[in-house]
Amino acid sequence: MTKRQFRPLPVPSVSVSGYWGDWQDAVCDHTAAILLDRCVEAGMIEQINPEAPSPGIVIPIIHWLGTPQMFWDSDLGKSIETIAYSLYRKPNPALEARADAIIDMYARLQDADGYLNSFFQRIRPEWRWTNLRDFHELYCAGHMIEGAVAYYQATGKRKFLDVMCRMADYCVRKFGRGPGQMRGYCGHEEIELALVRLARVTGNQDYMELAKFFIDERGQAPNFFVEEAIAHNRSPGGVQKKTFEYNQSHLPVREQTKVVGHAVRAMYLYSAMADLATEYNDDTLTGALETLWADLTRKQMYVTGGIGPAEANEGFTDYYDLPNDSAYAETCASVGLVFWASRMLGRRPDREYADIMEQALYNGAITGLSTDGKTFFYDNPLESTGKHHRWTWHACPCCPPNIARLVTSLGSYIYGVADDEIAVHLYAQSEARVELANGARFTLRQETDYPWSGDVAISVSPEQSARFAVSLRIPAWARGATLSLNGMQVPLEALEGGYIRLERDWAPGDRLALSLPLEPRAVRAHPKVRQDAGRTAIMRGPLVYCLEGVDNGAGLNSILLKTGLGAAQTAPVPDLRGAIAIELPVLRELAEEWGDALYADRAPAVREDTARLVPYHLWDNRAPGEMLVWMRQA
Amino acid sequence: MTKRQFRPLPVPSVSVSGYWGDWQDAVCDHTAAILLDRCVEAGMIEQINPEAPSPGIVIPIIHWLGTPQMFWDSDLGKSIETIAYSLYRKPNPALEARADAIIDMYARLQDADGYLNSFFQRIRPEWRWTNLRDFHELYCAGHMIEGAVAYYQATGKRKFLDVMCRMADYCVRKFGRGPGQMRGYCGHEEIELALVRLARVTGNQDYMELAKFFIDERGQAPNFFVEEAIAHNRSPGGVQKKTFEYNQSHLPVREQTKVVGHAVRAMYLYSAMADLATEYNDDTLTGALETLWADLTRKQMYVTGGIGPAEANEGFTDYYDLPNDSAYAETCASVGLVFWASRMLGRRPDREYADIMEQALYNGAITGLSTDGKTFFYDNPLESTGKHHRWTWHACPCCPPNIARLVTSLGSYIYGVADDEIAVHLYAQSEARVELANGARFTLRQETDYPWSGDVAISVSPEQSARFAVSLRIPAWARGATLSLNGMQVPLEALEGGYIRLERDWAPGDRLALSLPLEPRAVRAHPKVRQDAGRTAIMRGPLVYCLEGVDNGAGLNSILLKTGLGAAQTAPVPDLRGAIAIELPVLRELAEEWGDALYADRAPAVREDTARLVPYHLWDNRAPGEMLVWMRQA
Repeated sequence: MTKRQFRPLPVPSVSVSGYWGDWQDAVCDHTAAILLDRCVEAGMIEQINPEAPSPGIVIPIIHWLGTPQMFWDSDLGKSIETIAYSLYRKPNPALEARADAIIDMYARLQDADGYLNSFFQRIRPEWRWTNLRDFHELYCAGHMIEGAVAYYQATGKRKFLDVMCRMADYCVRKFGRGPGQMRGYCGHEEIELALVRLARVTGNQDYMELAKFFIDERGQAPNFFVEEAIAHNRSPGGVQKKTFEYNQSHLPVREQTKVVGHAVRAMYLYSAMADLATEYNDDTLTGALETLWADLTRKQMYVTGGIGPAEANEGFTDYYDLPNDSAYAETCASVGLVFWASRMLGRRPDREYADIMEQALYNGAITGLSTDGKTFFYDNPLESTGKHHRWTWHACPCCPPNIARLVTSLGSYIYGVADDEIAVHLYAQSEARVELANGARFTLRQETDYPWSGDVAISVSPEQSARFAVSLRIPAWARGATLSLNGMQVPLEALEGGYIRLERDWAPGDRLALSLPLEPRAVRAHPKVRQDAGRTAIMRGPLVYCLEGVDNGAGLNSILLKTGLGAAQTAPVPDLRGAIAIELPVLRELAEEWGDALYADRAPAVREDTARLVPYHLWDNRAPGEMLVWMRQA
Repeated sequence: MTKRQFRPLPVPSVSVSGYWGDWQDAVCDHTAAILLDRCVEAGMIEQINPEAPSPGIVIPIIHWLGTPQMFWDSDLGKSIETIAYSLYRKPNPALEARADAIIDMYARLQDADGYLNSFFQRIRPEWRWTNLRDFHELYCAGHMIEGAVAYYQATGKRKFLDVMCRMADYCVRKFGRGPGQMRGYCGHEEIELALVRLARVTGNQDYMELAKFFIDERGQAPNFFVEEAIAHNRSPGGVQKKTFEYNQSHLPVREQTKVVGHAVRAMYLYSAMADLATEYNDDTLTGALETLWADLTRKQMYVTGGIGPAEANEGFTDYYDLPNDSAYAETCASVGLVFWASRMLGRRPDREYADIMEQALYNGAITGLSTDGKTFFYDNPLESTGKHHRWTWHACPCCPPNIARLVTSLGSYIYGVADDEIAVHLYAQSEARVELANGARFTLRQETDYPWSGDVAISVSPEQSARFAVSLRIPAWARGATLSLNGMQVPLEALEGGYIRLERDWAPGDRLALSLPLEPRAVRAHPKVRQDAGRTAIMRGPLVYCLEGVDNGAGLNSILLKTGLGAAQTAPVPDLRGAIAIELPVLRELAEEWGDALYADRAPAVREDTARLVPYHLWDNRAPGEMLVWMRQA
């Protein structure tokens, strides 16, 4: 097989409807404007307006190393990115005008040399480039660049893109190994993957090279953050959270083997590494990433695709340490895992990555948004006593725009295209308009009620007959999957990395019918995960299910799952967007018959009962109450 | 039955040997001096020395409302109390001289009007009596009073007692409902129970009345802490931890029905209430206490007698919320529960209180001290992944002297004496010298290897034949207990509050033989305790057992208890002071055969194994490793 590079389709090339269409509508109709409203309320607009008096005191959101939050540019960048994607789906002149106004302010604020960061221009100019480790200066630039790329693609307007190209050009001059250049990198990764996107859309390879520089420099000895601290008379021992692992600068990236530190930072780093592995066909990066991938997904990931169990470092702890009720599992971290997984598909279709991408998308990420698009989860525990609820906003408002931009750009995660191949990574009601480098032009339409149904009708409609490959992911969980092409069964024994690859001359009217069995599955965790010992999670397709108090009353840990799911029934839940619920016969310990004693040398009485499980990502959208993913196994 | 008041025997009246003798030796030989050494290292002695320059800056232990720890007088008070008790057991002129020197410094420091608090005399005189809510001013006086009483009883020296009587006299003038008096009380209860002790030893009823005043005033409207805050231009909304419940000032004490807030504060409050209920025969206090007792022990207590699950408020959370790995369960709180339980026995012998006193003593409290008396637990989780270990000291060093004074005064918790009765609350190798108000004088000797053996030989040896009652506790767990008097079986059907009451003419040579069965018991928690769902704790007599890594290797949550303990074996552990271990056949899930997957739709393989359990209170005295109390039930 020739060396292949797979890149995502641009967002405008894929029209999404059905399940994801509903999510996109929620963002277009509510979230996109809410993001800006909240940024306005937080005072962000005032801070970036070069005509307003320099405020001196700033956004009272969170205190950050003795100053208020200094990374609001990133929130605006992600919000504009969300708005951009939303405009593809639903033109909205009012929203577009608000985004334009913000972009105008940034354009006026930008220094003549291209520098742009409203905190370091308006509030603390003397801190500029003095603390890359903690101050998120390049991180902000990264999110602004991503917003600019998206806004350009959505509206055709170059203004924001040009502004951010000038900032990127400034960075190209500022950072490097040459005389007078800073040989550093950001404590919070993000600029790297943004520069790859900017290089791809502008064709300017300088940006790609700068991304590569940041990646190659990270963790080299002597550690840049130590040098920087000494240069600015700070204690080099004062590394945030006390470790270089916190921001993954403890080793050169190619020597890193363990997923450590702040989870979002790690995901953004690995995403950029994967992009560069694809762009440069760099097996040294791919090798490191494969090791890190196994480390994360085999020892440190919740069944939901949530990652980073600890609030203390917003990140990773020990292997197999996955507490459920105190799980941090930040929405942004699962969004970042989707980013990373999607980029691991850049070198070949492989369900090792795509299955996890789907798992994190449906369970770790989208959980962060309410069905109406108006409220948000920041942390995502797998068990709640009834006190965990969605926020209208968060002290550190990184998650709302992150999940919103993922939802609105979902179309670009469904496919990967190489010169002569399209890989279908996700199943979702949608229509893609594709042009391959080999000249093939076709529409690929998926008709499906996935994830509620496992039946997917795919039509491949080239303008004229053309030779290329269509690779379809057969998820590892889909035992007994079947596929037909124009009515003829296609054997699914010979998969490549979990994909069935159909290379042929495709003609107008070609139809694929894929059937993925969605029988509920009882999943157990590795015996070393002490928090899940003796417990079972129920999955159906890519979805993790949970018990909610609204369906099952109080005391979810009194419910015992019987062995085997043979008696499970499924039925749609009308007040939950028609989601498919699972009903199971269970045993239930009777608290009311136990008596007053707190401890006694007898077991509780039990009775037969029926439990109703709903998809985890839809929890807390109805009445508040308890929630539990890992059920006790009788 | 006549109204009876039971009071403890003074510490010097009971000589302890055997199990508790070993603990007392550890404190006498090591802990007592360590307490002073650590106080010296922390700079406390320097702070109270009136000849030294006023330090201005103070003990760098913990920051407390913007100042260093302001309650070091309490640490010294408890340390002197410990030393006092230790001097009964083992005269130690060097240690006594050190205590005398500290007492001399306090005597010189004391103001002419009797006021004594080194922080508010030496560091922040302007803060005196400005913030009773947070500043521990009366709390410190309380611990100094307790130390003074103990030191007087131990040495016969009156100096410290006189000093603290002058401070108490000052408080009698300062606090009250009269003109010019402060109508307030301390945010951290302690002075109340100390004043009862001082009244009992001096016979000065003013002290008792002041204790009653503090108790009666607490929680009355308008709330004193609000008035105080307003008077000193502080926000009344700034109540520490945001609630009056934190320091139990939310309601008048007789109207309180729920155990809330900071656990140690609550225990000290209820202890004083129980003392006053006894002294004043106050049924309104007793009624409230019975409600609070049921609330604590039926809804909010670990099986270890640990209380206060949350670090955030060092106290109580929701009913049935008893997390094991993050349990705060401060040593001081269980010490406080022993205090409270012992005082609930002031009105009648009742195993409802004595059983819990014993449970908290053996599992919640003594766990805080290493067998060599040199290191300490502050918080007492019921599960550890191997990272929880004893401290040589603690940022807030309240627990080491608290457990040390409890251990060295243990003799006074064994008995309660009324005018014509002695109640045996605890079984422990010991000899008590008793004189009842009715004139009976006798020695009561217990010969026993309790808690390792359940056989207790009790000799009651009056100087001459005398009529009085001996009441023996038959613990609720001791099903099948037997008792003989001079070789004749005594039926145990007719218990009063769980005690067998033997009222007769006792003669020299009378012997009782009590046998308490110590078969291991499998204990389950109330089904509403979600953290213990599907789990079992093993107890033997009053002792909670646990698994330790040193005996069972890693992965204690892979161990499954089989139904029934019929095959349990017991054997002494030589390297753990001869403690009795329990060996059980169990099942064990095999992590090594599971494979790489973090999640899979199959159950882990299991094999037969043997588990060894040791008493929880002795854990972390050998090699470090995991620990688990609540085992999975197969």
